[in-house]
Amino acid sequence: MSKPLKYAVFGAGSWATAIVKMLCENLDTVGWYMRSVYTKEHLLKEQHNPSYLSSVEFKPSQLKLSNDINEMAKWADVLVFVIPSAFIHSELEKLTVDISKKTIVSAVKGIMPETGKLVGEHFNDDYKIPLEHIAVIAGPCHAEEVALERLSYLTIACTDQELGQTIANALSSDYINTRVSDDVIGIEYAVMLKNIYAIAAGIAHGLGYGDNFQSVLMSNAIREMKRFINKMHKMKRNINDSAYLGDLLVTGYSAFSRNRMFGNMVGKGYTVKSAQMEMNMVAEGYYATKSAKQLNIKNTKKTKLPIIDAVYAILYENKNPKKVFQKLTEKLN
Amino acid sequence: MSKPLKYAVFGAGSWATAIVKMLCENLDTVGWYMRSVYTKEHLLKEQHNPSYLSSVEFKPSQLKLSNDINEMAKWADVLVFVIPSAFIHSELEKLTVDISKKTIVSAVKGIMPETGKLVGEHFNDDYKIPLEHIAVIAGPCHAEEVALERLSYLTIACTDQELGQTIANALSSDYINTRVSDDVIGIEYAVMLKNIYAIAAGIAHGLGYGDNFQSVLMSNAIREMKRFINKMHKMKRNINDSAYLGDLLVTGYSAFSRNRMFGNMVGKGYTVKSAQMEMNMVAEGYYATKSAKQLNIKNTKKTKLPIIDAVYAILYENKNPKKVFQKLTEKLN
Repeated sequence: MSKPLKYAVFGAGSWATAIVKMLCENLDTVGWYMRSVYTKEHLLKEQHNPSYLSSVEFKPSQLKLSNDINEMAKWADVLVFVIPSAFIHSELEKLTVDISKKTIVSAVKGIMPETGKLVGEHFNDDYKIPLEHIAVIAGPCHAEEVALERLSYLTIACTDQELGQTIANALSSDYINTRVSDDVIGIEYAVMLKNIYAIAAGIAHGLGYGDNFQSVLMSNAIREMKRFINKMHKMKRNINDSAYLGDLLVTGYSAFSRNRMFGNMVGKGYTVKSAQMEMNMVAEGYYATKSAKQLNIKNTKKTKLPIIDAVYAILYENKNPKKVFQKLTEKLN
Repeated sequence: MSKPLKYAVFGAGSWATAIVKMLCENLDTVGWYMRSVYTKEHLLKEQHNPSYLSSVEFKPSQLKLSNDINEMAKWADVLVFVIPSAFIHSELEKLTVDISKKTIVSAVKGIMPETGKLVGEHFNDDYKIPLEHIAVIAGPCHAEEVALERLSYLTIACTDQELGQTIANALSSDYINTRVSDDVIGIEYAVMLKNIYAIAAGIAHGLGYGDNFQSVLMSNAIREMKRFINKMHKMKRNINDSAYLGDLLVTGYSAFSRNRMFGNMVGKGYTVKSAQMEMNMVAEGYYATKSAKQLNIKNTKKTKLPIIDAVYAILYENKNPKKVFQKLTEKLN
């Protein structure tokens, strides 16, 4: 029997905390890297993350905690990144150890804002990780419901289906059902795009559109997502699988989605800047909107993206949300 | 110029009331048949329906109200039926005038429980209405949001596209966007099936499943719906269009859907009978579940319908909802 793989999670937000919890159901030791010394000390003393999913109790003996990214990267075989895309670049700059032989799992819900690259693409290009050693974790999954151990489904995408299954097994439990997919690129795009549509749903809500319109918006969003992903990476996929449609719905219908909340504030009249300041964070979909727009402009096989165009016009061109959405409603069906 | 068509709505529930309101935006006179003498008198005196969407004000001068189904059927060219499927049969028994030359529009959200026939099919078989004179109105559209004049989208399905467009024009307004489809049969099935999935969503909610599971359920439901409809009537259609996916979502995510509410009570432990008595009505999806099950059994091209099977087992075979859903969760992905 081969030696079991060592997993480490990089990040300490709610989704990172949920993934550590899932891994703890199956593994003797789970590595966990976080920047904050305080969070690490708190976890050791109080057995929970002070800032996120604090109802989840951990056994410190089961965790290998570290504030040193290099120590953790060296120790683990499987590096699970769960850092907001905006901070990935600066975190990775601290890496000095060679990670080219490691397996990289991205649970980042976005795209590298500096380059417009998918996270997997970034590791492949800049860290020489072979594509078959790169996996993606996709929902539909609110971290908060993992904390409550409510049944949730994950899709693990990996071109190496056996490795994908190994990672899936490490995450599966009574309350986590997993499936494996080979559509790494498509699923990474879906994860990124759904945040834009959640912003759109928020803007619509903020402008006073109701449930009837929301369902039309989601129905158009999944068709737009399908067109976009097919242009970027054509392969056989069912866009109505949980990793695409399910993830779109759980985010687009959630009153707790940060992207939807951000859109809602913009729809209600906040400027983009003031909404971001009020939320004390930048929603992933904000960067995703710009990247998706640019990727479509660069692509010789352009496609119609009325919803993304509308969100872009509002967030980046300072256009009036009410007027932009009035025009959008004529393009939807 | 040909004489404008005369429209009459048959029924006085919330969806019927919403459709009368839409027609009133465009037509000088709208016919409206209702059983209740009291409702008719109240509409004349108080200018609103006493029981449904009572915030909507009508001009009595614009309405041709009647309690006589034959008088109304004789007067109108386009007969819009908006009666719960369980009562259609008994209402139509009162008809003595010949309606074979009329245009029939079904806004019934179900299937004839006595025969398992689609409403359009019933009019075609029993009233000799040619198929090209039969249309279907589909959402996604909560009547309550029509009352509020919130932007909503309707799909009018008719094999005669010109007639479909004429009906669509009579319904369109500032707050109603319409499109025309030629998939009469597929859309009638979709309208019926979505109520079963709304019951499933309600049962899941009642059993304590959360938003993550709900999104997986909806993602599986649309795939199941596609399989079912394709087996019953194969033609080119995009199941993610608003009339199919949008309508599923608006119902499956609505806390006000009577089907979802019924399922919720069953999931919480009410017997089917007591839930129906408590609600003082039978949800459309209750009949639809039986019809869908039987249609699939009768069909030589059977398909897997795990969600419909689960709802059927709970509603008609007295199976334990908790156990049935535990098994169902293993079949979803």
